[in-house]
Amino acid sequence: MSTTPVRVSAAVLIIGNEILSGRTQDTNLAYLATKLNEYGIQIHEARVVPDVEDAIVEAVNALRHRYDYVFTTGGIGPTHDDITADCVAKAFGVPLVVNEEIAAMLRKRPSPPEVMESRMRMARIPEGGDLVRNPLGPPGFYIGNVYVMAGIPQVMQAMIGALDGQLRRGETIRSRSVTAHLSEGQIARPLGDIQNRYPHIDLGSYPFYRKDVYGTTLVMRGSVEADLDAMLDDVRQMIVALGGTPLNEERG
Amino acid sequence: MSTTPVRVSAAVLIIGNEILSGRTQDTNLAYLATKLNEYGIQIHEARVVPDVEDAIVEAVNALRHRYDYVFTTGGIGPTHDDITADCVAKAFGVPLVVNEEIAAMLRKRPSPPEVMESRMRMARIPEGGDLVRNPLGPPGFYIGNVYVMAGIPQVMQAMIGALDGQLRRGETIRSRSVTAHLSEGQIARPLGDIQNRYPHIDLGSYPFYRKDVYGTTLVMRGSVEADLDAMLDDVRQMIVALGGTPLNEERG
Repeated sequence: MSTTPVRVSAAVLIIGNEILSGRTQDTNLAYLATKLNEYGIQIHEARVVPDVEDAIVEAVNALRHRYDYVFTTGGIGPTHDDITADCVAKAFGVPLVVNEEIAAMLRKRPSPPEVMESRMRMARIPEGGDLVRNPLGPPGFYIGNVYVMAGIPQVMQAMIGALDGQLRRGETIRSRSVTAHLSEGQIARPLGDIQNRYPHIDLGSYPFYRKDVYGTTLVMRGSVEADLDAMLDDVRQMIVALGGTPLNEERG
Repeated sequence: MSTTPVRVSAAVLIIGNEILSGRTQDTNLAYLATKLNEYGIQIHEARVVPDVEDAIVEAVNALRHRYDYVFTTGGIGPTHDDITADCVAKAFGVPLVVNEEIAAMLRKRPSPPEVMESRMRMARIPEGGDLVRNPLGPPGFYIGNVYVMAGIPQVMQAMIGALDGQLRRGETIRSRSVTAHLSEGQIARPLGDIQNRYPHIDLGSYPFYRKDVYGTTLVMRGSVEADLDAMLDDVRQMIVALGGTPLNEERG
């Protein structure tokens, strides 16, 4: 009963003007949340910053001291707006150095000298860093607890997939959810009572309105399956006591 | 030529465990970016924090001192996990008080006393605050430069729509974009030269891979239409000089 599960925490830092301008809909955060939970790591915070050195450096330093891991996406290509490597090096106070393994990979594709010079920007990693493998192209890198990945979703997904088994594993969070056609006002008091009985399980209430139907989905998240099942029972009973029907139960 | 356009800055603070767990895909940031740009306001940073008091209070205070506006989404319903109003009041060091206008609206729908008590949580706003109108339900509120809105997209959209004309207006950013089936490595050097010639226009390069086609979309963002058109001309010429074809031009 008194086991203290290990929690491993992470922050996600999304780098790119295109996310803040609304031009691009980020999907990396939701993907990373699911994948990292499979790895036993939970995201506690996310930030989106523009392609601006001071903003990136400050965010990297704020987040890496606070969480077990930081995962960044975006800004690692060969063009002038790809400044993530420079900024992470600056955050750690180290120079960028050419990684010979990446350089050799890049040289395999023949290019005119000017093009090769630009592509070689992708071979620079902060001194003391190492590689994040990328089956689809040039690797990313990590230094300390900061993992630097591409912004393109399929490339980012390949990179985080390649990190399987390389990260410290903590507990995985499981979930239960159930929906009722009741208003949040109706359930608020008894739901709060249930939350108080299970302080180590996070109980969220997510109202929805679709066409002319409204309701609330109740989501329980925690690491102990038996407690989740007991809490779900209590929530089901609450719904029935309020005249509702428990719908769309899901386990995750 | 030396007019200094007024920039009005904003941060978005997304509040909710469901975004960080990956259960819910946020779409509010991208919507707000587009809508606020119509209002002459640009988002400079976004943060996602859990339903945890310390995290929300700290983020509100960090962001409200740094940007002209802060817009929050999520956590304003009647259930135990809706703590945004409490946290914003704490960030400003003021008590929550019952807003009689909201209270009167809530009383119009008859409810059992226990349910009414829960719903009345939504009538509490920080002392010194005022209302953000909501055509779909109970209002949000603002205090100082912090605007507090719902997390449900259609409700948030109704609230930000109701703020039309109430916010300080700065310049609106316009855009041009053009795509080429060239690699980022090929364009990196000449693209950087073009960026250097137009330091006040943000030139982004967004590579893509679709099926067996790769390419890059080049996006120019700035407030002066004539400069955008001139820069787009230069980018077109660059693409042609590299053997490519300018495709899918867009103006925004």
